Amino acid sequence: MEPKMQRKILEYLKARPDFVSGQELSRQLGVSRATVWKYVRELRGHGYRISAGTHRGYRLDASPDRLFAWEIQAGLQARNFGRAVFCHEELASSMDEAFRLAEAGAGEGTLVTAECQRRGRGRLGRTWVSPRGKGLYLSLVLRPEMPPLHAARLTFVAAVAVCETVRESCGLEAGIKWPNDILIRGKKAAGILTEMNAETDRVHFVVVGLGLNVNTALSRLPPLSTSLRAEAGRKFSRTELVRDILWRMETWYGRLCGGDFDGVARRWKELSLTLGRTVRVADGGRVTEGKAVDLSPEGALVVLTGEGDLVRMMSGDVALLD
Amino acid sequence: MEPKMQRKILEYLKARPDFVSGQELSRQLGVSRATVWKYVRELRGHGYRISAGTHRGYRLDASPDRLFAWEIQAGLQARNFGRAVFCHEELASSMDEAFRLAEAGAGEGTLVTAECQRRGRGRLGRTWVSPRGKGLYLSLVLRPEMPPLHAARLTFVAAVAVCETVRESCGLEAGIKWPNDILIRGKKAAGILTEMNAETDRVHFVVVGLGLNVNTALSRLPPLSTSLRAEAGRKFSRTELVRDILWRMETWYGRLCGGDFDGVARRWKELSLTLGRTVRVADGGRVTEGKAVDLSPEGALVVLTGEGDLVRMMSGDVALLD
Repeated sequence: MEPKMQRKILEYLKARPDFVSGQELSRQLGVSRATVWKYVRELRGHGYRISAGTHRGYRLDASPDRLFAWEIQAGLQARNFGRAVFCHEELASSMDEAFRLAEAGAGEGTLVTAECQRRGRGRLGRTWVSPRGKGLYLSLVLRPEMPPLHAARLTFVAAVAVCETVRESCGLEAGIKWPNDILIRGKKAAGILTEMNAETDRVHFVVVGLGLNVNTALSRLPPLSTSLRAEAGRKFSRTELVRDILWRMETWYGRLCGGDFDGVARRWKELSLTLGRTVRVADGGRVTEGKAVDLSPEGALVVLTGEGDLVRMMSGDVALLD
Repeated sequence: MEPKMQRKILEYLKARPDFVSGQELSRQLGVSRATVWKYVRELRGHGYRISAGTHRGYRLDASPDRLFAWEIQAGLQARNFGRAVFCHEELASSMDEAFRLAEAGAGEGTLVTAECQRRGRGRLGRTWVSPRGKGLYLSLVLRPEMPPLHAARLTFVAAVAVCETVRESCGLEAGIKWPNDILIRGKKAAGILTEMNAETDRVHFVVVGLGLNVNTALSRLPPLSTSLRAEAGRKFSRTELVRDILWRMETWYGRLCGGDFDGVARRWKELSLTLGRTVRVADGGRVTEGKAVDLSPEGALVVLTGEGDLVRMMSGDVALLD
């Protein structure tokens, strides 16, 4: 099914609370009435509730709570991010699928979403719990010209974009916990995963993955996790959230690629829950305690220890101690 | 066809210049005489010339000049590198195939070879000319625990191993030109390509690729290239070279993973054709001239310019000016 035609039919139906005649749709779309009917049946197959009456035409009664390329792309402000969108009912992992597409040549801004994931991945080989239809599980293909050393900056771009979306579109007090978590009232609502295919001195492509608990019930989530719904007491449109995140990511990514990493880092620091706090960072067997004082250009957390040493942590798990 | 059985049959045939009876082979291998005959026919299909006579048995008259898993693995000193070997007649690129296997879970030391490549890759998206049956075009899957920043060290490991092989097994005066070329008398005989799949702070897997011009005629190669055969005036066994390279790579890789990067770097510097020379390094639009004075722990070439600045080049093309 061609996403463009679905988008057009839905645009007409959504613009009109009452029936639209098959003749009018046929004329507007430049296809036969039989073809209109075929598309309507396909949309019904995707879960759209569409009334049809002889001499009256079609009326959209309800849209399914599911991500579709034509829904995301309708009204998308981002120009490049989301230009190609692949929405799946179920994937092992949206990261794997985005890697597969990127290896086959998929362009920058290609988006992969899944309603649920069988093996959703987090950082360091961990699992991202991905119950069906309740969260955003998405991966975005990027092709920045940068050395692998700078790829962590894309985690900051994504973290800033997601955090701003949760704050400004959902009205929730979200912040960023280094390196890749979005927290609301101390509990994890989203995680970001940045993976790359690279030579030693240049990136071929990067896939930025996001897991965001949107309408998920707390009973479905691991301890110390939360969802937007649990925090706000209401449901959110996942489609609108995707559009908002894509647009904000594209904007911050543009600044990064334009050379303004400082601007990205400054915003990250404003949104950071980690800087200025007393932290314990566990990186493999090594544990460092001290005050988190800065973010390095490579994305390391700079910790000032009790002995007065500045330690740069590139990896690890952070516990906030105060 | 099971590589192990092929290896066993060939071991018996190679150990005996004269005929070996089908009965003896059948007894030694624990299979029926019909099965022995089936394997012999399969070996013939691979290009082995095997005489067969009633009441006399089988005799190996000649082996094809082609890489086979059972040939590489017979007498392989390396324990882990080459444990799994996949030899292809033709591939788009051994790098792509090794990536595919690694993504599917292939273990450390998995080796992929090709008799020829349709789109053999070099560094920075360049082509590696890969004429059929004359060179080594191979890729090795590694799973080191290291950050992406250290992946360039694997290029050094491979360069040292290949350079030592060419010097010690072929008796040719080879040296290493930063970052990834093996030169003989100023001309390029081999190139190394290190690519990875990684998170921002840890490598998932690395594929180290090697293109080595072994028996290639100069007329088939780009300008300023050479082959072992052209330099030595004789042909070399590609199978033996693979075994030698795998063993040396495994040894140096073991030192690297054991924490002795200094030892690897020391050996690299001994074999370097770049250090101590006046160089011009072109990295994108940026050109730096000066004396190459050191190698940084991340693999950067440290250049002392005429103005007395120390410049670290992570990437680029080097011209030797003196």
